[in-house]
Amino acid sequence: MNGAESLVRTLVAGGVEVTFTNPGTSEMHFVAALDRVDGMRCVLCLFEGVATGAADGYARMADKPAATLLHLGPGFGNALANVHNAKKANAPMINVVGDHAIYHKRFDSPLTSDLEAIAKPVSHWVRAGGSSLTVAADGRDAIVEARRYPGKIATLILPADTAWGEGSGPVVVPPQRARSRVDEAAVRDAAALLKHGPATLLLLADTALRADALASASRIAAKTGCRIMAPGANARVERGAGRVSIGRVPYPVDQALQVLAGVKHIVLVGATPPVAFFAYPGKPSTTYPADCQIHTLAEPHEDLGEALQRLAEAAGASASKPQFAAAKRPDLPSDQKLTPETIGAVVGALLPEGAIIVDESVTTGRNFFATTEGAPPHDWLQLTGGAIGEGMPLAVGAAVACPDRKVINLEADGSGMYTLQALWTQAREKLNVLTIVWANRAYRILRNELANVGAENPGRKAHDMLSLDNPALDWVSLARGMGVDGIRVTTTDDFAKAMKAGIAHNGPYLIEVVI
Amino acid sequence: MNGAESLVRTLVAGGVEVTFTNPGTSEMHFVAALDRVDGMRCVLCLFEGVATGAADGYARMADKPAATLLHLGPGFGNALANVHNAKKANAPMINVVGDHAIYHKRFDSPLTSDLEAIAKPVSHWVRAGGSSLTVAADGRDAIVEARRYPGKIATLILPADTAWGEGSGPVVVPPQRARSRVDEAAVRDAAALLKHGPATLLLLADTALRADALASASRIAAKTGCRIMAPGANARVERGAGRVSIGRVPYPVDQALQVLAGVKHIVLVGATPPVAFFAYPGKPSTTYPADCQIHTLAEPHEDLGEALQRLAEAAGASASKPQFAAAKRPDLPSDQKLTPETIGAVVGALLPEGAIIVDESVTTGRNFFATTEGAPPHDWLQLTGGAIGEGMPLAVGAAVACPDRKVINLEADGSGMYTLQALWTQAREKLNVLTIVWANRAYRILRNELANVGAENPGRKAHDMLSLDNPALDWVSLARGMGVDGIRVTTTDDFAKAMKAGIAHNGPYLIEVVI
Repeated sequence: MNGAESLVRTLVAGGVEVTFTNPGTSEMHFVAALDRVDGMRCVLCLFEGVATGAADGYARMADKPAATLLHLGPGFGNALANVHNAKKANAPMINVVGDHAIYHKRFDSPLTSDLEAIAKPVSHWVRAGGSSLTVAADGRDAIVEARRYPGKIATLILPADTAWGEGSGPVVVPPQRARSRVDEAAVRDAAALLKHGPATLLLLADTALRADALASASRIAAKTGCRIMAPGANARVERGAGRVSIGRVPYPVDQALQVLAGVKHIVLVGATPPVAFFAYPGKPSTTYPADCQIHTLAEPHEDLGEALQRLAEAAGASASKPQFAAAKRPDLPSDQKLTPETIGAVVGALLPEGAIIVDESVTTGRNFFATTEGAPPHDWLQLTGGAIGEGMPLAVGAAVACPDRKVINLEADGSGMYTLQALWTQAREKLNVLTIVWANRAYRILRNELANVGAENPGRKAHDMLSLDNPALDWVSLARGMGVDGIRVTTTDDFAKAMKAGIAHNGPYLIEVVI
Repeated sequence: MNGAESLVRTLVAGGVEVTFTNPGTSEMHFVAALDRVDGMRCVLCLFEGVATGAADGYARMADKPAATLLHLGPGFGNALANVHNAKKANAPMINVVGDHAIYHKRFDSPLTSDLEAIAKPVSHWVRAGGSSLTVAADGRDAIVEARRYPGKIATLILPADTAWGEGSGPVVVPPQRARSRVDEAAVRDAAALLKHGPATLLLLADTALRADALASASRIAAKTGCRIMAPGANARVERGAGRVSIGRVPYPVDQALQVLAGVKHIVLVGATPPVAFFAYPGKPSTTYPADCQIHTLAEPHEDLGEALQRLAEAAGASASKPQFAAAKRPDLPSDQKLTPETIGAVVGALLPEGAIIVDESVTTGRNFFATTEGAPPHDWLQLTGGAIGEGMPLAVGAAVACPDRKVINLEADGSGMYTLQALWTQAREKLNVLTIVWANRAYRILRNELANVGAENPGRKAHDMLSLDNPALDWVSLARGMGVDGIRVTTTDDFAKAMKAGIAHNGPYLIEVVI
């Protein structure tokens, strides 16, 4: 058994069930090994950023890593933005990156690059395989590293000769350990801060945004009057009717400052202190009051749900009633113009139970959280690292992880163009993804930002650089080009009709909403 | 005047006339400055790899650098593959990459990344701007570094506060120096090797592949019987009727070994020793005979044309007649099946004078060089770094550099999908680009490679990972989605008709050739 097959069998034995692939010549033995080994689903992606974004989406929903298969330094470059996003989502991921045979590197052939240096800035762990006999053990280590809580990026470089040379056979992968419990002192300290009522904010992130953890947090709030809130962008929030509805710190700095005014103590539960996404002249980098103190109940790698449960006990809130969102949907707008408000209402009115929302709406979607809080229970996934172009790939991964649920990707047109190749994978794998593209035909957020940084009255050149309307993108044609049916809508009625049809449709479908 | 405007004015003063942009929030002051300053053309790209591939194509045809405008570490990641390709093409390029304000970085907001570490592996020079007062001088240094022969990648990191703070005003940029001449000893040593006749090979690359330099090389070959040849992939070759036709070292290792058999001396003229693109079990990494010696007449940064002229003098070949290709085109095939041979004949029969061919045909195009050598004079640009997905962006840049010439992009379907967003820029800028996509609906090269590495009889999973036919890509729809008209052809007659129409069309057009 060669190194490649030893590695693939190790991955399968370690519970890695899916590889998102974009292979090249140096990976051909790995491809051949994938071919021979049962238990690994291979999902072809036509661009590397689709593969890594899909692995992120898969990890968020499956709570375990997928593998990616990439090709040398430039291939990792293409994958890098969504590895960055996954890293900020604390998503586990195992990147297997083919490289030249070790003895071939010194000849500096065209695709030679410093793969290790390219991978390091966005990986927690990088190892270049040194021998076909040890590459299966390297794979085991990659699994162990990726699974380290709260989820790590492990990148294994696979020189071609370590794949085709004689291997060790599969090696045993230890089971994943349980998350660590927070110290009693941390619970006690946090509990002491709850006496300040609404001047104390529990800032919840990562697995503290799962339904049970949110229920504990809500009990604490009900009992003590403290506030609870989530960061602006989150890897996964369990929400909807019968669950706790949690507000998020707004993206615009002024709004964030306003929302956090009066907070004297922020208790971090898997979160980091609230900061501005970007710097702006004359505005602060942090968005909490100057006299606010930062405390930590639990870090992301710890058992956040258990920590909140203990905090509830310490606060005497175990029997308190969490504030669950009532089942309530907006009225379906009829015969109205498409605006962020009316489309938010349509989304809220029609969201199906168990949906997985992948939200890369950018400017258009800022009120969607409000219009959907009483919809049937669903998950909400966001772009965590700010590198736009992850929505469509995330939807691929979520759909692979959860084939029985509907994935609804709310996508800005500017962001969607970065990784539109994901639609082809959705068609090939017949993934149950409904993509809704908000066609405002502009980098709208940048128009706002141009004003925010103080650059007023943009001229023609600046306007052209932020506008996508010449020519207008035709998303229905783009989708058709990759085997996905779609429709363009310009009224609320047509949007509602299309959304119903898209939800009923088994497989990928795209709606272009012209706003 | 702020730092951004000081920098833009410095770039313009330094002869940088075009910026390929994909901006974000951190670049808004730079965008506003571009708006205010005349003399800089801004070309919006919807993906960063389009911007850097376009800058590469521009540099190859304009012989000077363009700038790119990118957004933080993940944006540079998206750009990285085509920076790698440009680096291997010796193309000068100035990347301006916005980053967080210096004081904001320590807050680790979502888009924070180690931009310098990401840029370094593919840049010759990286500098992070430290102050708005010095950023114009940093820009000057970037121009000077990019222009270092044979062409360098200069990456200037622009923290947002160095853009918005008070600047120095533009600084003076020194003129580019002339290329250095090779030593007399190098000419003399090379001349002495020419007595071996066909056992000596002049291996010509970079600017040695311009028409005049090739004529000198051909004179030497006519006089001495030495061989002349180019590497497999070249940044730019001037060729066609009335110019020297030069053969290339083939991509398949066995063919390369065969072509180079009997060569005892390779004299490098801007080239590197011939090596295999990839390693294969049991095959050598170098493709020249074991007893062949490597010599250097000139390195890429030197004046290669002048060196060859002096070598011709030293060899007494100045008055010898170069072997120019006769004006001769293949017959236009009629009513035949579309095969690599018949489509090569159509391309050769119809290629217009002054065309710029951007060839990312991969497997389909291996015989196009032969069928076009007698076509009217034209330039031939190839993928130099092996990271597929540069053809369409290269075509953008070549068309911006040479608005009066027809750019014909011969593109493999698998490669085209990496950066198809380039079509939108072609439509927006009304670029005179005819894209011809070879739709073999597979990563065909990888099917061959799977056999080459010894992995025979692939099963269903391996087949699926190398096939693009389920669903088939519909390139006409993809193009239409980005504002480019196109047509699908399945016969030689329809292809010829479409190619004539595409050449006559003023602006972008796409032909999908189903093979």
